Amino acid sequence: MRAGKLKNLERHLGLYFITDNSFAHSYIELAEMALKAGVRVIQFREKRMSTKEMLESAREIRRLTEDYGAIFVVNDRLDIALASDADGVHVGQDDMPPKVVRDIAGDLILGVSVRNVEEALVAERDGADYLGAGPVFTTSTKEDAGDAIGVAGLTEIVKAAKIPVVAIGGINHSNAQSVLETGCTGIAVISAIAANNDPKKSAEKLLEIVRSFKKI
Amino acid sequence: MRAGKLKNLERHLGLYFITDNSFAHSYIELAEMALKAGVRVIQFREKRMSTKEMLESAREIRRLTEDYGAIFVVNDRLDIALASDADGVHVGQDDMPPKVVRDIAGDLILGVSVRNVEEALVAERDGADYLGAGPVFTTSTKEDAGDAIGVAGLTEIVKAAKIPVVAIGGINHSNAQSVLETGCTGIAVISAIAANNDPKKSAEKLLEIVRSFKKI
Repeated sequence: MRAGKLKNLERHLGLYFITDNSFAHSYIELAEMALKAGVRVIQFREKRMSTKEMLESAREIRRLTEDYGAIFVVNDRLDIALASDADGVHVGQDDMPPKVVRDIAGDLILGVSVRNVEEALVAERDGADYLGAGPVFTTSTKEDAGDAIGVAGLTEIVKAAKIPVVAIGGINHSNAQSVLETGCTGIAVISAIAANNDPKKSAEKLLEIVRSFKKI
Repeated sequence: MRAGKLKNLERHLGLYFITDNSFAHSYIELAEMALKAGVRVIQFREKRMSTKEMLESAREIRRLTEDYGAIFVVNDRLDIALASDADGVHVGQDDMPPKVVRDIAGDLILGVSVRNVEEALVAERDGADYLGAGPVFTTSTKEDAGDAIGVAGLTEIVKAAKIPVVAIGGINHSNAQSVLETGCTGIAVISAIAANNDPKKSAEKLLEIVRSFKKI
């Protein structure tokens, strides 16, 4: 599975949507609007639900992403990724170490959140398939914690990394261009899609910006 | 692994300790005192830590239980069970469904929390190796949620189940005998050990009671 998915990974990473329940729509509604707009990577990030509920939501998103030929990634929870037949799992620095994920689930796409070049190189060495680098800008949502690394910090990571780098944290229509100019593979967003009055249209506009930089 | 562990499972289930951090001692300290007393099943139950911290604690308890030839079970989190090389995973009705656990990790010992005969038979059919039945008594700790099933409810489950039944919920030195008279395989406790001034001594006394019913 991994080899096949990895083939399209870099292209699909252009716009990476992390679906959330905290806004006016459910996970599923938001995921579907993003997919309809053309987004081809959806991450499910959830900390509050019971494992059973989490699995049910993950499986719904799995079915939906399957319909659109999109990549489905579960945040943090390898158990949910395995049980929902996700394509990948994304781990932060406080989650399961990448090496451990690789040992247990060798064929999952593995994303790792990094804040600097050092973390990026460690993640790469430990088997990451792509990096989530940020937070690029400060953000009030959960896109990422900690101090913003800025476009400058992102640029350093993009230069140092051999694997795709997805920028994350406070990215929206106004600043997406400056972020993509760093040469990063793509941008990850939550609120720029989820908190918009028209999530589908918002995703389409972001995709237009991304397409002015690369074929996705 | 599972076949070997299952051989001793029924005997070891006599006194089942669920380790907790909420009292005067750490997980590790409590687990070690219980093991020194002779307990041979330790469950790690934790909901608040990050996945990384959870894995570190689980691995510490894994090493410790290994030293004592004891069975190590992780509550709810199959990812932590797999990554810490636990012997088993214990799931509640709001956790990952037993069938799904079996599909992903066929060689783990699988425990399932049940409140009544119906849930017990479903869990058995879906591949459980043992049942955690309760809460037998009401309890202020997290030993189990919901209304107490009483000794009567426990008795029904013990009669209906073909696999070992561990009673849980508010069990202590005063009521352990009445619980064991139902014919259950063993008793599971948190606070009767963890909240005691002398956890090791408390575990020894509970083991004495269990030994008056069965060879463990």
